[in-house]
Amino acid sequence: MDLKVDLAERSYTVTVERGALHHVEDRIPLDGKTLVVTDDGVPENYAATVARKASVSGQAVTVTVAQGEQSKNFENYEMLCRVMLENGFTRKDRVIAVGGGVVGDLAGFAASTYMRGIAFYNIPTTLLSQVDSSVGGKTAIDVCSVKNIVGTFYQPGAVIIDPEVLKTLAPRQFSAGMAEVLKMAATCDGELFALAEKGVGEKDLEKIIFKALSVKRRVVENDEREQGLRRVLNFGHTLGHGIESCTGLLHGECVGLGMLCMCSEKVYERLKKALEVYRLPTELCADREKILD
Amino acid sequence: MDLKVDLAERSYTVTVERGALHHVEDRIPLDGKTLVVTDDGVPENYAATVARKASVSGQAVTVTVAQGEQSKNFENYEMLCRVMLENGFTRKDRVIAVGGGVVGDLAGFAASTYMRGIAFYNIPTTLLSQVDSSVGGKTAIDVCSVKNIVGTFYQPGAVIIDPEVLKTLAPRQFSAGMAEVLKMAATCDGELFALAEKGVGEKDLEKIIFKALSVKRRVVENDEREQGLRRVLNFGHTLGHGIESCTGLLHGECVGLGMLCMCSEKVYERLKKALEVYRLPTELCADREKILD
Repeated sequence: MDLKVDLAERSYTVTVERGALHHVEDRIPLDGKTLVVTDDGVPENYAATVARKASVSGQAVTVTVAQGEQSKNFENYEMLCRVMLENGFTRKDRVIAVGGGVVGDLAGFAASTYMRGIAFYNIPTTLLSQVDSSVGGKTAIDVCSVKNIVGTFYQPGAVIIDPEVLKTLAPRQFSAGMAEVLKMAATCDGELFALAEKGVGEKDLEKIIFKALSVKRRVVENDEREQGLRRVLNFGHTLGHGIESCTGLLHGECVGLGMLCMCSEKVYERLKKALEVYRLPTELCADREKILD
Repeated sequence: MDLKVDLAERSYTVTVERGALHHVEDRIPLDGKTLVVTDDGVPENYAATVARKASVSGQAVTVTVAQGEQSKNFENYEMLCRVMLENGFTRKDRVIAVGGGVVGDLAGFAASTYMRGIAFYNIPTTLLSQVDSSVGGKTAIDVCSVKNIVGTFYQPGAVIIDPEVLKTLAPRQFSAGMAEVLKMAATCDGELFALAEKGVGEKDLEKIIFKALSVKRRVVENDEREQGLRRVLNFGHTLGHGIESCTGLLHGECVGLGMLCMCSEKVYERLKKALEVYRLPTELCADREKILD
């Protein structure tokens, strides 16, 4: 299934298709030079598959950063730019991210600023990045451990979502992604919420990803640079970010908790039950002041 | 004199006015927080004047980097972002550059990426930056001493040009700026060339700045992201950059030499004479291979 994100000359297609990882050449031009960025938590063969394809008609350079938010730093950003310069990348070359939101944010920021912007493609490999961060063009690194302080709005040339790769995703990571799906459903799509609160079977997965992406697409098309409407997708994020920086919980887990704290009594029970379906945390023992700080 | 750069929602005004430095509040909103970026080669009172104005209705933070191209590095870029974060800058705050092209490029890049872009204003204090780099929205830092490898296209909110500040500019720096004026004249404005080749008197200065800016404005309006026409302004720059990285000469001086190398025999003598009026170098003893490399 293809979803077009309509942003005038910055429009692009999001492909949701089982096995799409093995046909990236259908969606991404691979002549010239390609920087493949991944992290050491992503199965090696995903990035290797992309690099192999890129080596057929051009040259591929793969960089693997450490898994985790702390990789979204100035040091890695500078390193990616140096690697491109040392390998003679020009404005005609490209960056492909193969990984979760951290890899996409970091690689996208490097692509958006290298020679004032070269082509960027995203192949998200976590549910969280598939339904959320891969679409919308937000790139970022962190400053002094504060998330996404530096970045750009820079739309990818294409996004390729292969639900097959989620088979290697840890169940806890999958659930964290479902928290974001529930967020989009809770704010914008009652039908999606009804579907997701029942749990996800193999056959529903593509449908759920597609519907969540449709929500994200609609919001991004109406507010590319987050000046108003796009903030609706920050539901659960203000407290969620606070929880994230005070605990060892995953982003999606924190968003789930953040939503529970902020929602009305009317929806509290239903949302709590939905989170429990995915064994997402619904209670937290932590320093209240520290989180609010 | 005001010059409007017409780029749809990214349009802005360039003011050329004697004494404008002392009336920045007329052109730049100064509520909230202002980061003033300057370098230690710029008379201190210029940035201090701007910071003082910004302190009246808001809060000003001044950062002074070392003079010279080597300040356009990742370290200073990260430092500016940290300073803004530590001082609680939000999307509603701003950055003002007070200095030459190095300060404008560096501060502009920080502004364009801090929280994915906050307002940026430029008060160029060298002739070179007044007639060229302050207009057009190119921001940049260098990577491994290669110029402008990383950056963004990010238009300023306003540019304020006060010809009075050129009185403190070293004569050699002034001449280097005139090399860029001659470049714009040679490529796009015969009348400006005829004016500039005679030398610049006090009363012609504003006119020459304004006419050179008009050339730059026209090119930028037609090719904001340098996909074609804008490259005309790179006349003399390919070789110029090579000369710059092999010698201790100033950017403008290298552009002058670069033009002489690349121009037709027909214009060579006239261009050489014009460069000599400003005591710009017209011959070079250097390693030919190294420059071409």
